[in-house]
Formats: sequence, C-alpha cells, structure tokens
Amino acid sequence: MDCRIIKIGGNVVDNPELLRQFLNDFAAIEGAKILVHGGGVMASRLQKALGQEPVMAEGRRITDAETLKAVTMVYAGWCSKNIVAGLQGTGCSAVGLSGADADLIRAVKRPVLSIDYGYAGDVDPHGVNTDFLLMLLRAGITPVICAITHDGHGQLLNTNADTIASCIASALVPVGNISLTYCFEKDGVLYDKDDDGSVIPEIGPEDYRTLKEEGRIAAGMIPKLDNAFNALHSGVGRVTITHARCLQSGKGTIIRL
Amino acid sequence: MDCRIIKIGGNVVDNPELLRQFLNDFAAIEGAKILVHGGGVMASRLQKALGQEPVMAEGRRITDAETLKAVTMVYAGWCSKNIVAGLQGTGCSAVGLSGADADLIRAVKRPVLSIDYGYAGDVDPHGVNTDFLLMLLRAGITPVICAITHDGHGQLLNTNADTIASCIASALVPVGNISLTYCFEKDGVLYDKDDDGSVIPEIGPEDYRTLKEEGRIAAGMIPKLDNAFNALHSGVGRVTITHARCLQSGKGTIIRL
Repeated sequence: MDCRIIKIGGNVVDNPELLRQFLNDFAAIEGAKILVHGGGVMASRLQKALGQEPVMAEGRRITDAETLKAVTMVYAGWCSKNIVAGLQGTGCSAVGLSGADADLIRAVKRPVLSIDYGYAGDVDPHGVNTDFLLMLLRAGITPVICAITHDGHGQLLNTNADTIASCIASALVPVGNISLTYCFEKDGVLYDKDDDGSVIPEIGPEDYRTLKEEGRIAAGMIPKLDNAFNALHSGVGRVTITHARCLQSGKGTIIRL
Repeated sequence: MDCRIIKIGGNVVDNPELLRQFLNDFAAIEGAKILVHGGGVMASRLQKALGQEPVMAEGRRITDAETLKAVTMVYAGWCSKNIVAGLQGTGCSAVGLSGADADLIRAVKRPVLSIDYGYAGDVDPHGVNTDFLLMLLRAGITPVICAITHDGHGQLLNTNADTIASCIASALVPVGNISLTYCFEKDGVLYDKDDDGSVIPEIGPEDYRTLKEEGRIAAGMIPKLDNAFNALHSGVGRVTITHARCLQSGKGTIIRL
C-alpha cells in the first residue's frame, strides 16, 4: 500500500483559516494518507494561562508533570479532536491518536545527560504498530497522530512531532511507496531566513553540510532536516518541506540523498 | 459478540489510586469490553484555573466556546490518554476515542428551549458507528470513549457520558449479549443518600416511580437511572450501578424491567 505522511506544525494548527484550507486540501488527497500534527504554540499559551512558564532547551520543551498534562490536553485533546471533526466535515473519516493508543508508538524516557528533559520520549524505531495503522487505512480511515507517546508501562511522554512523522514514514517502508511532507508557514527551506522568496529547490547531503557550515540553516530547521534525511536513509521515497497551503502544488524544498 | 460496557464517573478518574485499582480490575475482564469515562470534576478545575466559571443547569454544563475547549482538552486529552496509557501498562491494548473519531457518535446540538446549553450535543440513536467498534473489538483492542461527540459538519459537542454509555450499549444489542455497568463512588443507588450502607439491591420501573415520588432518589441519580431504563428497553441484558472498586464482585443495584 502506497501512503503519504504529512506533518503540519503548530503555527498551522493555531491558524483557523489556514488549517481549514489545509484540511480541505489534505482530504482531497486520494489513497492512503496519515496526518501528524504539532501544537507547540497552543501548548505554550495554555501553560502561560495556567501560570506555568514554558522552558525550552535546544528547541525542545522541558516536560515536568504539569507540562506533560498541559501538552497532552492540547495535542491529544483540543488539536487532535478539532482536526478530526474538521476532516469529518469534509467527508474524510479520521481518527485522532496518541502513541499510547493501540500501542501505536512506544518511546523511551530520554536519559538525563547534560539536560533533564523530564517526561520527554525518544521513539523506539521498532516501536511503531504498523499493523494497527494498516487496519485503519484498509478500512478507509485516516490516522491523525499527535506528538504524545508512551513507555508501555503507563507513562505518557512528550515527543517531537517531526521525529514522529519521520519514524511513522520509515516504519511503513516495507508496505509500499512512502512519501513524507513537512508543511509549515514558509514556502520551503530558505537560503536567507529573512527573504521568504529564497526557497532552496533541492537539498542533498553535501548541500546540507555546506549550508550548515555557512550558518544558512535556521536552528529550528536542523532537526527537521535531520529527520528528513533519516527517513530517506530508511527507504522513504520522497521528502518535501513546503508551505501548508502548497500541499497540492508540489512546490517547496525537495530533500534527496 | 457479547460485550460489557462499563462507565466510570469523573470522581473515579480524578482519584489516581482508585483509578489504578479500577483499571486493573477492568483489564482482567475477559472478552469484549468498552470503557466510557467522565471527567467533570477535572474539567471544572481546569475551567477555574483558566479564570472561567463553570455554569451548570439541571446537572448539565452550559458549554460556550471556551468551555468546549476546556472539556475537550480534559476528556479527550488528559483523561483519555492517561486511562489508555494505564491500560497499556496492564497489557490491555486500548484506544481512546471521542465521538468525532471515525464518526463514532453523531449528535445534534441541543435546541434552545428555556435554557441555551451552547455546544451541548444530544446523541443521535442511529448515529453510533458499531462497525468501527466491532473492528477494534475483533482485533482485541478495547475502545475507551469520552463524552465529546460531533455533528458531522466539523463541530465538536459536549455530551453526557451516562447517555453515551447507554447509547453505545443499545447500539450493540444486535451483535450479542450486552451488559452495562455504571461505576461511581457509592456502592449503588442509596435508599438514604446520607447512609452509604442503604444500597437498594434491585430497582424495577414501579420501584423507581415510588422512590421518585418519595423524593428518595438524589437529583444527580435520575438521569443515570433514566439512561439505565432506556438501555433495558433497547434490549441490553443487564444494567448495574455500583462502586468502581466492586466491578468484579457483582455487588450494587441491579436495574430491571
């Protein structure tokens, strides 16, 4: 079974008009598809409304018990069900899942080295329940996956959504042609972060090395590109980074080996 | 396929020790089972922490847009995923669902009569996707259902969890012997609300009428009993109201026709 895995960032989920347009475009994709979504902007907003101070380290959220509760409420609760209800409204039957549901994504609590990330989980690459995904896809149901995983012993864990999209795509490689699209609020990877028109059409491993050396790649883009290359190395056929409103146009940055 | 539908109230979900024990007992039930859960206590607490004032009318929550967001975050987010992760920890594979997921429960926004309940939904009795439930149950996956439904046009709706349990049980009657258990923080329906030992062993329709006339039934118990009788009228084989820690004992109040 061929399948498209599409990830949208928190800035898309947080913009009702952009989200509505994206969901229409997404619903129109024929064949098997999976949506992975973030929600970081809304999680930080909830944390602040609850008097918590979001703490980030190297772009990742430090997740104490109260933070875990907040991100689970936002990602698996409001974002997930709002997206699912929106898709149902377009006639696309979807089901919103965390990694705990049907043991979909098993993760390990990140070991404490220089930084204690708290209840943050690193995905076990062999921990994706592809049988469950295939059961849903074969029934014509579209999985909508948020960035909460679990350790299999009752503990929920906060996990990076880009990594989840990459791991899901990689795990599905044995079943068919898999493509991965990262959608966010820019038209692609920019050569000059202050010039929205400077989209790089294609990035290979050597370009990536050079761009990093030149300091051209924004800090937040590095984990996304690492995830993109990981997916390609696992056999994912095509990885694209593009704007949420360009899902159908094929524009954006193509990542290649 | 025979199936047990078990509903736990918000006071159980909000008590970590009682919840843990309940989930162990629930996981030990052999055969097909479905868990329906509330979370009202936690929803009110979140609303207050966010500076909202929970407003109830006749025991039901008035649900404006901000309230809908809060209850969706609590029911479909934290409560659902916390229960699912707990069940995974016992070896029971579960999936947490709202009524929007896979179009599981369709509802209609409650018409405004004397009270405007806002985004509150009344379940469409023909709106339960039993095919999806059976697909999960046949795959050995236990559905965990929260009290959020949708209208099929993109709108989430807040719905009473007792009613959802009753509607799910009724919808499954054609597939086998169905039983329904309401678990809460008392040992059953009490003859004297101030005497926890005064559990009524059995209530039939005439007893119910008399108890109501005598003012014996607590206000909050009336919708639960109405839901219990509705389930029996639809062909559900057995309805029990009991304490969350008595799931396996068979104690409590049996409702019969």
